[in-house]
This record gives sequence, structure tokens and C-alpha cells, in this order.
Amino acid sequence: MDLTATKVGQVQKPDDGDAFIVIDPKFWDAVLQIDKFSHIIVLWWIDGRDNADDRARLQSTPPKPNAELSGAFACRSPARPTPIGLSVVRLLRVDNQRKRLYLDRIDARDLTYVVDIKPYMPSSDKVDDARVPEWFKDNHAYYTSC
Amino acid sequence: MDLTATKVGQVQKPDDGDAFIVIDPKFWDAVLQIDKFSHIIVLWWIDGRDNADDRARLQSTPPKPNAELSGAFACRSPARPTPIGLSVVRLLRVDNQRKRLYLDRIDARDLTYVVDIKPYMPSSDKVDDARVPEWFKDNHAYYTSC
Repeated sequence: MDLTATKVGQVQKPDDGDAFIVIDPKFWDAVLQIDKFSHIIVLWWIDGRDNADDRARLQSTPPKPNAELSGAFACRSPARPTPIGLSVVRLLRVDNQRKRLYLDRIDARDLTYVVDIKPYMPSSDKVDDARVPEWFKDNHAYYTSC
Repeated sequence: MDLTATKVGQVQKPDDGDAFIVIDPKFWDAVLQIDKFSHIIVLWWIDGRDNADDRARLQSTPPKPNAELSGAFACRSPARPTPIGLSVVRLLRVDNQRKRLYLDRIDARDLTYVVDIKPYMPSSDKVDDARVPEWFKDNHAYYTSC
């Protein structure tokens, strides 16, 4: 098995407007009903980090006060064995004409490849009492108040 | 860019005990500090669904009462352009000796390849008021009470 991801779209971040994902026309049928969800999970290929050095870097120190050296599986470092990024974002609107999904924000660079999109399902994706290490406790909270 | 994922471990689901991910020894350094998180996000290569037919199936009807035909990006169907599954799970314990991460559950088959693991960060992964279509509203809630 060669575990090859498919590029289904691309992030675009105009200076003067909301970020969006432009979906490859041949995958547009895959967005049917997506407007019924307020939030989506975007999986993207981390731009500029698909190289032997970054894939082999298994530990780094998160850029947070008092953070300790952490494994790639214990932080969201862009240097990881499989360079996939994950962003939970709000879906603002769907532009059927131009095949775009508009987002409130995304933590990926302009022109980043998108490889999958999943609807955010609170039943399985939301954790009420998750524990994190001290150095992540003051992270800015985007969609939660606690 | 060829967008090739790396197998970093494999799901195992013994009949008589908790499910676990056995991490490939060469990636074990990447779990440092993972025990400081209660929950993790596991990305896995959907077993048996990496084939031309499933990758080209862009719409299906979720197995829920009254569900409507939905795009692959608007449901969690295993048939999708990039056959990656995503599970938010509780990390029960870390077995350093046998290089295993024990989980309370995982929605992947025995022997499924794991391609990435990310810590669950409520600040960016938790959405308090997400909207979903009618047919997903009665899903069993795993880690949330609302």
C-alpha cells in the first residue's frame, strides 16, 4: 500500500477577504449537504514541510512559556512523520458558482493543498473535559468558552 | 509533490482487552509528553477502502434514519478521495516497554495503519455550539454531555 493522499482542493487567503478552500471541480459533488454543518475539519498537507528533515524530526519544543520538549504526537508541530495539518474551522458559506467553501480562519498558508474535509460532529469530536499540559492551558480558545 | 503518508503504527484490537496502537519503534520518540493529554486525535488509513472505486465514490447516504444523500465531505463515509479516518479517543495509558498507546475505543478495524497522532486541544478542537443535520442529531455522544 502506498498511502497516497489526493489533493481535493487548495486554501486561498486573500488579503482583503475571508479565507476559502477552492475545491477541485471533479470533487465538488463531495460537498453535498456540507452547508448543514456549522463547522468542518480540514486536513491539509503542511506546506513546505514535506521533506526528509522535517519528517524525521520527532521532537520539538512548542513555542509556549515553560513548554517542555515534546514528541510530534504530543504537539501540533508542522514537522511530523506524515505532514498533515488539522484545522477545525467555521464554515461561513458555500459558493456553488466558484466552488469555494468560505471559512472564518485557517491555520494553513495560502495555496496549501487540502486532502480531506470532514464534518464536525460533536457526538464524536467534542470532548468536554480534556486534559492538556500546563503550557497549552492559556491557548486562545476559538469555539469554546471552557 | 506526491503526498505520501507514513505508517507510524498500527491499531490492535484484542478480543480480551483494550484497543491499542502499537507504535513503530523508530517513531516512539514522537510520543514524548503524550501522557499529559487525556485525549488524542488518531488519523488512520481506512482499511480496505484504498481502491479506485471507493476513492471515486463522492456521495453516499449515511446509515441513519431520514438521512439524505451526502457528499463525502459532509459525512464520515469510509469511501472518500483520500481514505483517511479520524478518531478522537481517550488515551488510557502508555506502555513504554511494548511501545503501545492504550485507548478506550477506536472506530478502526484491527491492524489498521496509523499515519498521524495529534493531541486533542480543546482551545482549537472543541466547538461548543456546532450545528449538524437532523439525521446526525441522535448520534451517541462519547465525550460530551451536550
